[in-house]
Amino acid sequence: MKTGAFITFEGPDGAGKTSVLNALIDDYSLQLGEKLLTTREPGGNKISEAIRAIIMDKANTEMDARTEALLFAAARRQHLVQTVLPALDAGKVVFSDRYVDSSIAYQGAGREIGEAAVAEMNLFATKGLTPDLTIYFDVPSEVGLTRIHEYRSDEINRLDNEELSFHRRVRHAYLKLLQDEPQRITLIDANQPLEKVITDTKKVIAQRFPNLF
Amino acid sequence: MKTGAFITFEGPDGAGKTSVLNALIDDYSLQLGEKLLTTREPGGNKISEAIRAIIMDKANTEMDARTEALLFAAARRQHLVQTVLPALDAGKVVFSDRYVDSSIAYQGAGREIGEAAVAEMNLFATKGLTPDLTIYFDVPSEVGLTRIHEYRSDEINRLDNEELSFHRRVRHAYLKLLQDEPQRITLIDANQPLEKVITDTKKVIAQRFPNLF
Repeated sequence: MKTGAFITFEGPDGAGKTSVLNALIDDYSLQLGEKLLTTREPGGNKISEAIRAIIMDKANTEMDARTEALLFAAARRQHLVQTVLPALDAGKVVFSDRYVDSSIAYQGAGREIGEAAVAEMNLFATKGLTPDLTIYFDVPSEVGLTRIHEYRSDEINRLDNEELSFHRRVRHAYLKLLQDEPQRITLIDANQPLEKVITDTKKVIAQRFPNLF
Repeated sequence: MKTGAFITFEGPDGAGKTSVLNALIDDYSLQLGEKLLTTREPGGNKISEAIRAIIMDKANTEMDARTEALLFAAARRQHLVQTVLPALDAGKVVFSDRYVDSSIAYQGAGREIGEAAVAEMNLFATKGLTPDLTIYFDVPSEVGLTRIHEYRSDEINRLDNEELSFHRRVRHAYLKLLQDEPQRITLIDANQPLEKVITDTKKVIAQRFPNLF
């Protein structure tokens, strides 16, 4: 049934993913109009937003890592059924800010549940729907964290060490996914000026979908 | 680490499960005191209750069956981590009203996701923690439905046919589980007077745990 194109955007917070996506939307929406759907996980519908609220509630300190992973998968499923699949069936191009790879990297590696277990559980949510293309924005963990905290890089030593090792596990997991699925995932060096990151991303999309844009 | 006993109670609504459980609690709590913990899914803690609220919200008509199954599994995981496992580690006897078998029967068979897929996904939530004993209260689907609707049985034809076939799939799934795991699951004929159902249940528990009560 799937006739459109499903493109996901992955990487740590602080890699500039959102800025690049906004630039892409400005550009492609001129060409694609209603044929382009941009969305983000978790959220986008009433049920997923309610699930997101439980995940994000800072008062839920006792939340188990597997509970969190299952909630992300539940929100993902609903987002897929209500938003992504209908758009793909209508032949649209779907840009999704995060998808399964985020759960594998953050819950699987970051929270140390195990990447394989999280990947397998997510197959229940997606029934195997895989993106046509995944753009992974790579930055060294120190750079990503520094950007998040808006510290200057010479103050990197003030960052919490555990936080840094969490983000290193996340990045390592993304790089492993890239190694396992080089056909699907393309790495963009996001440790460059934003304009260059945007240009590189557009190049990758144009190469992969020469007739789409 | 698990040193207590984990006993789950399964079966359709209308089988008298709750009435039997209440009678058991009255009886065993005299002997066991604080050593007995009775609990039910989904719920029992703040996070699981919040998840339960999303599942039960009648306004969420667009909820996909797999989303629902993932939400039940998320609530189950949190209930296990916060309630069941600490009690078992403390050597307690845990009576749980519903556990994984309910998801296999209701979401797997009832909503037709497939029993194997739901069972496998739930392994992520439970890490394989299986009850020591499962009591399955069996009633013909027509009887269970009639009790739920408080109809007299001669008015059974007024029940929605789809609802009846849903409940037949659920019962069939429970009977398959019983066939696959006769060591763990014991069937109680719940189409008998309540007093007899209670006596039968106590007999099963006493046989399985001769030194516990």
